[in-house]
Amino acid sequence: MDDALHMRRAFELARQAHGRTWPNPMVGCVLVKDGRIIGEGFHAQAGQVHAELDAITRAVEPVAGATAYVNLEPCCHTAKRTPPCAQRLIAEGVARVVVANVDPHPAVSGGGIALLREAGIEVVTGVLAEEGEELNEVFFHTQRERRPFVHLKLASTLDGRIAMPDGQSRWITGEAAREHAHRLRAAHAAIAVGAGTLRADNPRLTVRLPGYDGPQPQRLVFSRGGKLPADAHVFIDADAARTRVFSGIPLEDALAQLHAEGVANILLEGGAGLAAAFLRAGLVQRVSHYLNPSYLGEGQAALEPYGLADLHRRITLKGVKYTSLGNDLVLTGRI
Amino acid sequence: MDDALHMRRAFELARQAHGRTWPNPMVGCVLVKDGRIIGEGFHAQAGQVHAELDAITRAVEPVAGATAYVNLEPCCHTAKRTPPCAQRLIAEGVARVVVANVDPHPAVSGGGIALLREAGIEVVTGVLAEEGEELNEVFFHTQRERRPFVHLKLASTLDGRIAMPDGQSRWITGEAAREHAHRLRAAHAAIAVGAGTLRADNPRLTVRLPGYDGPQPQRLVFSRGGKLPADAHVFIDADAARTRVFSGIPLEDALAQLHAEGVANILLEGGAGLAAAFLRAGLVQRVSHYLNPSYLGEGQAALEPYGLADLHRRITLKGVKYTSLGNDLVLTGRI
Ligand SMILES: NC(=O)c1ccc[n+]([C@@H]2O[C@H](COP(=O)([O-])OP(=O)(O)OC[C@H]3O[C@@H](n4cnc5c(N)ncnc54)[C@H](OP(=O)(O)O)[C@@H]3O)[C@@H](O)[C@H]2O)c1
Ligand SMILES: NC(=O)c1ccc[n+]([C@@H]2O[C@H](COP(=O)([O-])OP(=O)(O)OC[C@H]3O[C@@H](n4cnc5c(N)ncnc54)[C@H](OP(=O)(O)O)[C@@H]3O)[C@@H](O)[C@H]2O)c1
Repeated sequence: MDDALHMRRAFELARQAHGRTWPNPMVGCVLVKDGRIIGEGFHAQAGQVHAELDAITRAVEPVAGATAYVNLEPCCHTAKRTPPCAQRLIAEGVARVVVANVDPHPAVSGGGIALLREAGIEVVTGVLAEEGEELNEVFFHTQRERRPFVHLKLASTLDGRIAMPDGQSRWITGEAAREHAHRLRAAHAAIAVGAGTLRADNPRLTVRLPGYDGPQPQRLVFSRGGKLPADAHVFIDADAARTRVFSGIPLEDALAQLHAEGVANILLEGGAGLAAAFLRAGLVQRVSHYLNPSYLGEGQAALEPYGLADLHRRITLKGVKYTSLGNDLVLTGRI
Repeated sequence: MDDALHMRRAFELARQAHGRTWPNPMVGCVLVKDGRIIGEGFHAQAGQVHAELDAITRAVEPVAGATAYVNLEPCCHTAKRTPPCAQRLIAEGVARVVVANVDPHPAVSGGGIALLREAGIEVVTGVLAEEGEELNEVFFHTQRERRPFVHLKLASTLDGRIAMPDGQSRWITGEAAREHAHRLRAAHAAIAVGAGTLRADNPRLTVRLPGYDGPQPQRLVFSRGGKLPADAHVFIDADAARTRVFSGIPLEDALAQLHAEGVANILLEGGAGLAAAFLRAGLVQRVSHYLNPSYLGEGQAALEPYGLADLHRRITLKGVKYTSLGNDLVLTGRI
């Protein structure tokens, strides 16, 4: 009960640095003694102190004998900018450490926990592990798979249509949903579309939000080798240098290359063909689906066939959350 | 502000008799004097007292000078089991009457309001009119259109599929959604399916809920003249007498006939062909769409083409509400 309560607070602290910790994960730490919180901290930015040290520094009482709640396993490696946290927790005389997730970083991966246990500290792991995974889903995915996290965005009617047979598609969803989608763009390092969407819609693939002056994502166009319109916005506008074409190479290879260049996450904005290709290859980790409460009865489907043979093996979203956006709805879930 | 507050309370009172007032509407009444509620009442069942009289009877102070909030226009016709309410409100010396909706019943339709005004009572109409309409949507529809209210039920994946190309469709949605759908059945006088669904799924079309002993809806099968399987459950089970076939007659005629027999509302359970036929004819008033957060990428669409030419004239749901049901979601809205 209390463990979950304090871990939730650690998540809350971690989330304060949302979008600023990359390539590090978001981490929060709560120090509890005799049932009272005596210190709180979080990792604010890569290069700055880790959450554990931040909490220790801010503690209003000696930390000896306390329980430390931290969503990620304390680090133990010394070849980096910040001093290792496991050693520091031992030195401070912490009595108990509660962790949500093991750090998949090759230099840690259980080593921090082992060190704490060897020093006689009680360590509990896996507390709210699923929520912790979700909090740092991009970090965990890139660490484990050495590939960018791919977030598929779809927008359709309730009968799963994204355009009329003649191609009419602007706009299926309303203003609030479109603004939400631009905020989604802003949270990704790159936006990807298939050549079909480029040819049909000539999208700009930029973040357009009132007052937004953050970074603009890279723009990725995927083609199997078809002809691309040289005068498309993404090739001729002021930011044309941010546009990349991947033509005729396997999706896995393109993602490996982007990972090597430090691209953490990609918003895949369709269309139906490229989305199905990514799904078929098992390369999508999250889907956000905007739904307009209407029916076309015909027209283009949100998704091309992805090779499903058995209904019970279909792609199903887990941990689904939904939010209403004006008359529309957005659902998001992990694959 | 206060008018809306008290009208909401009148709706709440009205709803206490949900499912028991037919063929009458649900009506609630609140009597307010000097800002205090002095009486509340509702119409409990056809043949019993109207909401206004119920509130007057229960009032803890003399009603003279009070404001009466009532969601439906007070009645004024005398050729029925209960005495007219407009006359009674006048006799009691009520000062003001606030109404959500005018009664479409041909013997009232504004007559009650006119009578009150002639007696010098201030009458305000249209307060929370849309919510009042929705509360008694079946009553208003049948009164105005002389046809049963048709509620279309759909169940699909997020890409709008209801079955695999080979017909596999059990089950798209989970346990909680199926139970919800049985409660929906219980709230309708009849359940309709197309001959295609009868041939493909051989459904029982009964309410199956733990402990349910209410009435079973009629079962309606619509065909253009195709062959129907004589050994289908609905034709041979113990309740076969409750099954009706409408073959080769226009949908409007079938609905007119059902209305004449007193059928108030129909749950249209598909499939895609019959649903499109009803939509094309403008005969659907509400849709409830169960969504399983998954994708097939292929297979049968929830809806056949219904003759849409322009994206901006598509069928859009209004007043959409959604509820989560386990891993699924149900959306409901008016057409
Ligand atoms: N409502 C929405 O949310 C939304 C969003 C996006 C798009 N759309 C609509 O969707 C339509 C476009 O869909 P679409 O399916 O035709 O196009 P698409 O998915 O955008 O592009 C298909 C193209 O992507 C390339 N491609 C596919 N698989 C690939 C792979 N494995 N590796 C590399 N490249 C690959 C191929 O390009 P080449 O042909 O060049 O080889 C293929 O023709 C447009 O009408 C657009 O309006 C709607
Ligand atoms: N997941 C779900 O929620 C769900 C629900 C229901 C059904 N389904 C699936 O849907 C499939 C059946 O769909 P479907 O489109 O083939 O069948 P359907 O809509 O149930 O039935 C089509 C048939 O209805 C009759 N019909 C159509 N329009 C009519 C009109 N205007 N007046 C009178 N009759 C009319 C015709 O019958 P005749 O051919 O006899 O002339 C037509 O062939 C099945 O695979 C079933 O599993 C799924």
